[in-house]
Parts: sequence; structure tokens; C-alpha cells
Amino acid sequence: MSELRRDPVGGRWVIVDTDHPSKPEDFEHEPHGWRGGVCPFCYGNESLTPTEIDSFRDPNTAPNTSGWQVRVVPNKFPALQIEGDLDRRGIGIYDMSNGIGAHEILVETPYHHKDLSDLLNEEVEKILTMCCRRSADLVKDKRFKYIMIFKNFGPAAGASLEHPHTQIIALPLIPKNPMEEIKGAQNYFEYRERCVFCDIIRQELQEKKRIIFENKHFLSFCPSVSRFPFEIWIMPKKHQSYFYNMPPDEIPGLAVILKDTVTRVKKVFANPAYNFMVHSSPANTDTVLESYHWHIEFMPKLTRVAGFEWGTGFYIVPTPPELAATYLRA
Amino acid sequence: MSELRRDPVGGRWVIVDTDHPSKPEDFEHEPHGWRGGVCPFCYGNESLTPTEIDSFRDPNTAPNTSGWQVRVVPNKFPALQIEGDLDRRGIGIYDMSNGIGAHEILVETPYHHKDLSDLLNEEVEKILTMCCRRSADLVKDKRFKYIMIFKNFGPAAGASLEHPHTQIIALPLIPKNPMEEIKGAQNYFEYRERCVFCDIIRQELQEKKRIIFENKHFLSFCPSVSRFPFEIWIMPKKHQSYFYNMPPDEIPGLAVILKDTVTRVKKVFANPAYNFMVHSSPANTDTVLESYHWHIEFMPKLTRVAGFEWGTGFYIVPTPPELAATYLRA
Repeated sequence: MSELRRDPVGGRWVIVDTDHPSKPEDFEHEPHGWRGGVCPFCYGNESLTPTEIDSFRDPNTAPNTSGWQVRVVPNKFPALQIEGDLDRRGIGIYDMSNGIGAHEILVETPYHHKDLSDLLNEEVEKILTMCCRRSADLVKDKRFKYIMIFKNFGPAAGASLEHPHTQIIALPLIPKNPMEEIKGAQNYFEYRERCVFCDIIRQELQEKKRIIFENKHFLSFCPSVSRFPFEIWIMPKKHQSYFYNMPPDEIPGLAVILKDTVTRVKKVFANPAYNFMVHSSPANTDTVLESYHWHIEFMPKLTRVAGFEWGTGFYIVPTPPELAATYLRA
Repeated sequence: MSELRRDPVGGRWVIVDTDHPSKPEDFEHEPHGWRGGVCPFCYGNESLTPTEIDSFRDPNTAPNTSGWQVRVVPNKFPALQIEGDLDRRGIGIYDMSNGIGAHEILVETPYHHKDLSDLLNEEVEKILTMCCRRSADLVKDKRFKYIMIFKNFGPAAGASLEHPHTQIIALPLIPKNPMEEIKGAQNYFEYRERCVFCDIIRQELQEKKRIIFENKHFLSFCPSVSRFPFEIWIMPKKHQSYFYNMPPDEIPGLAVILKDTVTRVKKVFANPAYNFMVHSSPANTDTVLESYHWHIEFMPKLTRVAGFEWGTGFYIVPTPPELAATYLRA
């Protein structure tokens, strides 16, 4: 019989297929059908992007020229624009406002074909350091309430450009999913005076069934209430609310575990499309939200979301996370 | 500048790209890559499915033989099983229960290649009548709290079999998305003593910008706060909480507007994959939830959900619903 499991943070139920679990070879591999054309993120093509916001680059090289290791530029087709007022208003029962925000692209490496798993640890550290630096800069703008850092890799995961890049979006409000997690964590804290994510870590370390990898400061595991097969969470072991306030001496450990995650997924699946998202506490709120515990959610793109999921918000998980962890640990 | 819009029911914000709206030709067409093999839903192959639950069939034909017009069978690979107890339990902080429920397949027509838009009105009426009949039967089982009726058409929308079919899943609890809509509708009702969906209909009929089609009892329109480009809602004009309690004399009108919807979408896009879901009030609850207003949400599968959507629960809608409605009305 399949199992219903309830997420202790947001209360979402999922259906885990423990009867006929899907193995890695049961998922269809969709080849990456990249569009061709000149890559705006490669060395020499810096003029094809909007003006550089920040970069790590060789001394004696000028912005918007080659010589960088990590480069941040505004998205050429931003979902949100930085200039203007929010101007909240209602038209009948519909509330709306202007699309104010920021939408930046972090080009992770000059190498068009090197994904995170192909980079040196130090190169991944630079990417993470830049993610923190850009977040810390963006939250200085008091209009921004939430910074969402995410990566789409492969067209099936929504990427339109092949050159590895991460996106940073600053939002003028706390979006639905983080808000649910934050409220869930607050409710749990009020009831038990403990962080729900710390309790998850404690139980995972005790049960050991879903752990993939750990180092001094971080843990990766397949969450008990995964929404997707082979979903992986990376979490700081010690309670920390804000990704971008992470102690700088912990960044090397995060670089190792993030690279390890991508490497393991690529060993189990042939270069799959994937997404990952950094879930952090919101910025510029009236009260500091210390009950939240930042983490990264990583999802290889193996299945299609269908009518049942769209209609219910339930997910049917074809591979139990315990089994997924076995493959990923191997 | 793009526009932020807030769903008056669930409070979800979406980002509508009013600056560079995508036209129908801007979406990539993904050809349906159907798997081959013998179709278990065609005439003569009735023995390939589990035993028939219900059907409309010619008199003098026996169950599990040909001669049917609409046929309902248990899913051969059900997400949930009908036998057993829910047996709710906790393992540390994780709550779980057995996967109790029902998972039925409604084969819409004996014709392998006829989708809803190719059927006669009377044939679509039979499908809808059967959906109501199965729902009414399933809710007699007091363990079931929610009936989700949905259709996946095309592999990109999660369908694994080509032969047109609808799925009916009975769940032992009210899932997340309907629960949010129900709570939103209740809150609105408490505040204004009006149904939020009735107010939406009133405003849509007044503004006329997003209406696609209407008949005596039903209205189809692109919702102001669409999550997906060319999303369409079909709604009874008069307040009704339960899909399956719909007055039988209204079924012909629903058949016409549902067939019209699929036909219009297939005129704008070349045979796209799509999903639709019936959103109805839950069953077997302590109180009757009259503030909810059932409707059908229809979504052609044109885009990929990516990291931003998974992380935030926000959606970026590349085609404003006002523009989508213009194409669909034409």
C-alpha cells in the first residue's frame, strides 16, 4: 500500500509509492534541446549583456571585459523592474501593483560547458560568496522583502540559456511558499519552543535512512516528505535564519556539499535537468524572523507535473526518499 | 512595466508580463511522443483493464465487453487503494497514514483518436453525467473527504496513455489547494456576506475583457490572476457548491462550453497538451461548505515550471489574460 506523509513545516500531504517504487532507470531521459546562437555569457561577449553589477575578476581588468571568474548582470528580460513605485491599487475585487523588484543573472563561470560539478571547490565558493554579497546589497533597498536565489539547468527545468547561471530575484513582498514555511516554523516554535528544521535534522541524523552526505557545518538528505523523486535538501546543521548572513568560514563547506550533490545526481542520472532554490528568511520585515532555518532545495527534473498535482497541491512521489538516498549515497 | 496581481480567493500573487506579452506563436510546440503498444482502452481490449465499475453501454451488451460509450475502471496502477484503514500515526515529527482512497479511470469514448472537441455534444454529456454519478457514489464512503476529477492530455501534461480518459481520485482528506480556496472563500464570505466567485463572475461580465464564451448556465473566461498563459476557467453562473450535485438539466450547457473550450484552444495552438481539473466542495465534512463555488480550471501546457515558481509559489505569466481571451474569442 502507498503511504501518505505530511510535511511537518507546511502541512502538505504527499503520496509516496512504496509498492512499486520507480528506480533511476524508470525515468525517461529528455535530451537537452538547447537553442543555438552566440552565448552572451561567454568571454568576449560581455557587451551582449546589460552593464555589469558586480564581479570577481583579475586585477587590471575593467568591468564589462573578459578576465572575470563570476559576473553578475541585470537580466535583459527582467520579470520585475527596479525603478518606480509599487503603487498598490484595486480594480473591483482584484488587487494589483507595479512589477517592482530586481532580476539579476549570476554567470557562474566563463566556461560554457562547465556545470557546478565540473568546477573547483574554490570556484563554487566564489559563486556562493557572490550570491551572499548580492543579497546583502539588494536588501539595503527597503522595498525588497524577499530575495529568491535559484538555478534552472536544462530546458526541461526552464533554462533558456545553456551557459551555467544562477538567478537572483528581489521581490517587494514575501511570496506564498516561503510565507507558508515561515508561518509553519513559527507555529511549531510557539508550540514546542524548538525550530522545526532543527528537529528534522535531529531526526534525520538519528534515523540515518535518508542522509546522503554531511560535513562539519552542512547536511544533505532526501526529505521524508519529498514532493519530487530524488529531491534533496541541503541544510546548515546549526540554526541559521538568513542565507546571506552565513558566517564566511562556512562557505567552503557549503561549496563542497553543493558540488557533491550535483555530482551524485549526475552519477545516478545522465546529465539531468535540475532546479535548486535557496529558501531564506525574508528581509526588511517588522520583526526579525529567527524561527526560520535557511536551506537549499534541489530537484532533478525527472517527472511532469499533471492535473492531479495542479488540482490538489498533493504530490505523488514515485520513489520513496529512503530508496532515493540509497542510490545517491552509493 | 510588468504587473503584480493578487488572486482574491487564495491570496497568491502572480507577475503578468504586460510589456513583452507572448503571442501564441511564441510558445514552442512539443510533439506528443506517445508510447506504442496495445491500447487497453479500445474496443475489444476490455480484458486488459481491471473489472468495469460502471458504464453507459448498448442494451444487451455485458460489462467488460465492447458496446460501451463511456466506461469506468479502476486504475491498474492506483495512487491510492480502496481497502484498509487510514491508520494515522506519527514517527517522531513525521505524520503519516496508509494510502487509502480510490483511483478510477473514465474512458471517454471508444475512439482512440477522438478528443473532447471531436465528440458530439451528447457524447460529452455522457462523460459529464458519468463524472457526477461516480462522484456521488464515491462520497457514500464516509472515509472520502474530497473527489478530484481531472484530465491529462498529452505526455507533456503528464498523460501516459493516448486514448482520451479522465481520472477520478477520492482522497481521505481535503488537499492543500482546495483547502486554501475554501478558506479564502469562507473568509471573503464572512467579511462581505457574498461569494467571492459570484463577485468574480459579476466583475468579469461587467468588464468583458476576459470573457471567452457564455451560455445560459455557464461562463468561460481567462482569470484575471491566471497562473499559466491561456488558462481558462469554466464556472456555473449561479452559485453552486458541489459539481456532482449539478442539476441534470444543466449538463448539456456544460458539455457545450467544455467542448467549446477545447475546440478554441486547439484553434489557437496545434493540438497542445492540456490539463483540466474540477474544483468542487469537499464531501463528508462536519458542516456543509456552501460558500464555495465549483468550477473547472483548464490549462494548455505551454510553458515549463522553473525554479522561481517552485521556490516562491509566484507565477510569471507571459501572456496577460486579457490578450489570451482576445485570441480565444477570435
